Amino acid sequence: MKRAFVRARRPEHKQQRREEILAAARDLAVASGVRNVSLGAVAEAVGLAKSNIMRYFGTREEIYLILAAEEWQQWAEAVTARLEVASDDAARLEASSDHVVAALAETLADRPLMCDILSQTATTLEHNVSIEAARTFKRAILAVIADLGSQVARATGLTVGEGTELVSVATAFAGILYPIAHPSPTLAELYAQDPVIAATCPDFLPTLTRALKALAAGLPTLRED
Amino acid sequence: MKRAFVRARRPEHKQQRREEILAAARDLAVASGVRNVSLGAVAEAVGLAKSNIMRYFGTREEIYLILAAEEWQQWAEAVTARLEVASDDAARLEASSDHVVAALAETLADRPLMCDILSQTATTLEHNVSIEAARTFKRAILAVIADLGSQVARATGLTVGEGTELVSVATAFAGILYPIAHPSPTLAELYAQDPVIAATCPDFLPTLTRALKALAAGLPTLRED
Repeated sequence: MKRAFVRARRPEHKQQRREEILAAARDLAVASGVRNVSLGAVAEAVGLAKSNIMRYFGTREEIYLILAAEEWQQWAEAVTARLEVASDDAARLEASSDHVVAALAETLADRPLMCDILSQTATTLEHNVSIEAARTFKRAILAVIADLGSQVARATGLTVGEGTELVSVATAFAGILYPIAHPSPTLAELYAQDPVIAATCPDFLPTLTRALKALAAGLPTLRED
Repeated sequence: MKRAFVRARRPEHKQQRREEILAAARDLAVASGVRNVSLGAVAEAVGLAKSNIMRYFGTREEIYLILAAEEWQQWAEAVTARLEVASDDAARLEASSDHVVAALAETLADRPLMCDILSQTATTLEHNVSIEAARTFKRAILAVIADLGSQVARATGLTVGEGTELVSVATAFAGILYPIAHPSPTLAELYAQDPVIAATCPDFLPTLTRALKALAAGLPTLRED
């Protein structure tokens, strides 16, 4: 027992614990939505006391900001892979902004956890965290936005500034659209009872795609001569 | 005492109580943000027990959905007043979509409580309410969106469908942008420490205006022949 206790303090063991906690928080969020996961539920899932969890992460929100940064990073990799393929297809330059919009929108639609986290970031997750946790998160996502903004500019006729706006709006709009397109149990029941109201519930991917296509077409018209 | 007890059951008294509760919930939300107001705080502000409040409103979220519908209605009146003035100015038809975008964006910027509510609607307020409360709310806002969508179409070269999209995106984007542009105390402290990160925090009105201008310019390019 003494030996195990000593081992638990070694850096690689701490790192393993951190990863177990993050994995449990991720699984719980996928199963029931970020908003419904408490720190107590995470603690129970990994078999630790809540006070023990807080030696690794200050708050529930800090756990989800770390997962948020991971989701943004993985999303960036998926978009980059899509844009590299698209740029081989130089003959279709005219359709390039449609390619880029599809790459942004479809990779977001493929990531329900990221969209769920996006819907909670500014209203919830960026509250109740340390300044250092907020700084680490902001730096990570600003790097992703800057990188993807440049890639979008290279793949289209948009400027870097416009590409950055397209990427920013894509993630912002995904964050508000996701919970609308994936209604609460109450709304799902209302929609089942009332087809007229149900028909106004937007589908995530086509709604996001259309808004981004319009934005990509409209941004260059706002350039000042 | 007996007499006062009887009077409390009269419909006009009940209506007055409802309005007192709604006014208290509104004041508390303006002061500290919708997310920070509990049903207990509302009860305390009107001097009733929590169980007493629940004879008027099923949940905290039902109170805020009613306030949400009121905010949408008042917003619609403000936009309508702006568009009526704009349509007198028929000579400036070319700039009409800029007028409409300004009317939508500036009236939202004038309504921090509405924007705060928009940021909470799909993620929080549409949970934990009765189906009837959700139905009443949805019908109210769908009527507003349809009405404003038609007005936008009349004032611009957009179709009714495109006008409706512009109005929908305006409110959706306001809902995600508002908490980003009005950061949490932690983020405010981070921005004070780190001007490079602070510079990436969007300003609400110019960011909303620019996105809606681009959308209004881009939507007609998506029409199928």
